[in-house]
Amino acid sequence: MNKRLDINLGARSYPIFIGPGLLREPDLLRPYVRGKQVMVVSNTTVAPLYLEPLRAGLVGLQVAERILPDGEIYKERNTWHGIFDALLAERYARDCTLIALGGGVVGDITGFAAACYQRGVAFIQVPTTLLAQVDSSVGGKTGINHPAGKNMIGAFHQPVAVIADTDTLSTLPERELAAGLAEVVKYGLIRDPAFFNWLEAHADALQNRDAAALIEAIERSCQNKADVVEADERELGQRALLNLGHTFGHAIEAGLGYGDWLHGEAVAAGMVMAAELSRQLGWLDAAAVPRIRSLLERFGLPVAPPPGLGSERMLELMAVDKKVQAGALRLVLLKGIGSALVTGDVSAEQIIASIDASRKTF
Amino acid sequence: MNKRLDINLGARSYPIFIGPGLLREPDLLRPYVRGKQVMVVSNTTVAPLYLEPLRAGLVGLQVAERILPDGEIYKERNTWHGIFDALLAERYARDCTLIALGGGVVGDITGFAAACYQRGVAFIQVPTTLLAQVDSSVGGKTGINHPAGKNMIGAFHQPVAVIADTDTLSTLPERELAAGLAEVVKYGLIRDPAFFNWLEAHADALQNRDAAALIEAIERSCQNKADVVEADERELGQRALLNLGHTFGHAIEAGLGYGDWLHGEAVAAGMVMAAELSRQLGWLDAAAVPRIRSLLERFGLPVAPPPGLGSERMLELMAVDKKVQAGALRLVLLKGIGSALVTGDVSAEQIIASIDASRKTF
Repeated sequence: MNKRLDINLGARSYPIFIGPGLLREPDLLRPYVRGKQVMVVSNTTVAPLYLEPLRAGLVGLQVAERILPDGEIYKERNTWHGIFDALLAERYARDCTLIALGGGVVGDITGFAAACYQRGVAFIQVPTTLLAQVDSSVGGKTGINHPAGKNMIGAFHQPVAVIADTDTLSTLPERELAAGLAEVVKYGLIRDPAFFNWLEAHADALQNRDAAALIEAIERSCQNKADVVEADERELGQRALLNLGHTFGHAIEAGLGYGDWLHGEAVAAGMVMAAELSRQLGWLDAAAVPRIRSLLERFGLPVAPPPGLGSERMLELMAVDKKVQAGALRLVLLKGIGSALVTGDVSAEQIIASIDASRKTF
Repeated sequence: MNKRLDINLGARSYPIFIGPGLLREPDLLRPYVRGKQVMVVSNTTVAPLYLEPLRAGLVGLQVAERILPDGEIYKERNTWHGIFDALLAERYARDCTLIALGGGVVGDITGFAAACYQRGVAFIQVPTTLLAQVDSSVGGKTGINHPAGKNMIGAFHQPVAVIADTDTLSTLPERELAAGLAEVVKYGLIRDPAFFNWLEAHADALQNRDAAALIEAIERSCQNKADVVEADERELGQRALLNLGHTFGHAIEAGLGYGDWLHGEAVAAGMVMAAELSRQLGWLDAAAVPRIRSLLERFGLPVAPPPGLGSERMLELMAVDKKVQAGALRLVLLKGIGSALVTGDVSAEQIIASIDASRKTF
């Protein structure tokens, strides 16, 4: 049932292993450990569940552990510097290896610490959430938040291996599973119509955490992301398509204060708004929007912004987000299910109309 | 009199311009500015002297300035984060450009901020010390210090251009000029015997800040460093040769507390100890050591550790430094003037004997 996917980035290529029980296979992890000094970074939620089996794969090495508090608010400079303090207290050398055991926050902070410790050391991702398995596993984006914006400080740093043990998804809260599925749906929408059809056919299996369905969903998501990233490692072109729903979504997260909605929940609602806007522009046929909405709803995901967040305010937040990120307000929209494009040619009125439309139930 | 040197690193290639008055040539700088937002980072010593002419080259752009306090002790996390705070306060986008105007500290911090701001933005080096012009201009090493060790947090991030205006050397204190010359001598010692001979012939001209001599010394140093870096960008092999004298030198700096001796001064004494050790091992003929010592002395550089720092203590500090840096104690030694090698095969007794020997005057 196990899958192996190779991400081809020249000298920075690495494998992703996907399957049940992988954390309990020490022979899988060991060949990717560089040097004799390992630091496992995890958080207070994940460590009690999965640190022990991981540790069994590291016998004979110098192993340090760094357990972070759980939550996006800790993805910031002090938590990050704490990793360097710990590495230097133990005199870790340049040939050490960092292992990130946890979700996206742990992966982003640990990867960024690995990127900068002595100008770059090896790191292994062991993602334990569906979102991290489908999203953070591929792309090499690492970083921390700044009070003025998410992921504003970071680096591109590829892992030497990713081990996605699907057994870890059994302990994942319902909402987090759904948030991961939102990103899975995104891959179908932006470039893989067959995968979108497959998701419609296997929505119940995924919802019920069927192992085979989850493995296939993760593999196909990673493969789609890999195709995009291999063509555009530094996000100069088509990699922007991965941001479908994200500009709308970030506005929801910022409007509510980060931490109220999960990122994947905001992206789900954002994708519906992007689909609405695409329909209004005549790029997406009318039947596609309810299809997208319906699949997301089957996963228990929100498909509109919260009622308390007005459409004008959303637009304002979208403009701020984009101003900091790249200059002009450019959106990822759909030409069909499985086909996306980036455009800057959308008016404020059109954006507001699409937000309003997402609020209507049919 | 101006020189242009191209550093060939594939997609990360860039030019180094060397010559008098370059800061006052706006047409030189402008083509390398990406986007419309520029932040000049400098310090309280350099900014009053050279910020004004630089600013004249940036008319029509959004220009922010960040003036850091002067000194190696400010090469640390808070100063570094202050740059992000300022960039985000001004909502600088991913296509902005950072310009480092100053010596090695300004260059290292600014380059590292550019490496991490929104996962990497463009930066231009305008080095105003001889050390920065010959050393920081090539190699892409950026970073900050940690209380537990120098340059422990950083990244490889290449500039888009380096502008080395030799007029800025006219305001450089005597000791700093000499410290830069120590690194210049290093290039002759590790790989360029003809350059070493040239330095012996032009020591007085350099000491007197003769413009043509300085330009040639900078160009040949940068070319030598470029040859090494182009072959080994990530410091996996021969790039280690650039550390001639540095393990001894770091021990002096650490033993005295950083800031007492300049880095280049410590490296000068370190190179004499490395030469002594090479002679003791039979790799370097006896006449070479006084030749090296004499050239360094003509520049007013120290050629032995300070009397208060015992040889046993030096050895201890060298071992600590190396433990954190890379594991075993490996030293760069000389096989001749213009030829170096890395070896781990040296005993504690031999190292102490070489330190002791450097203290004797002849």
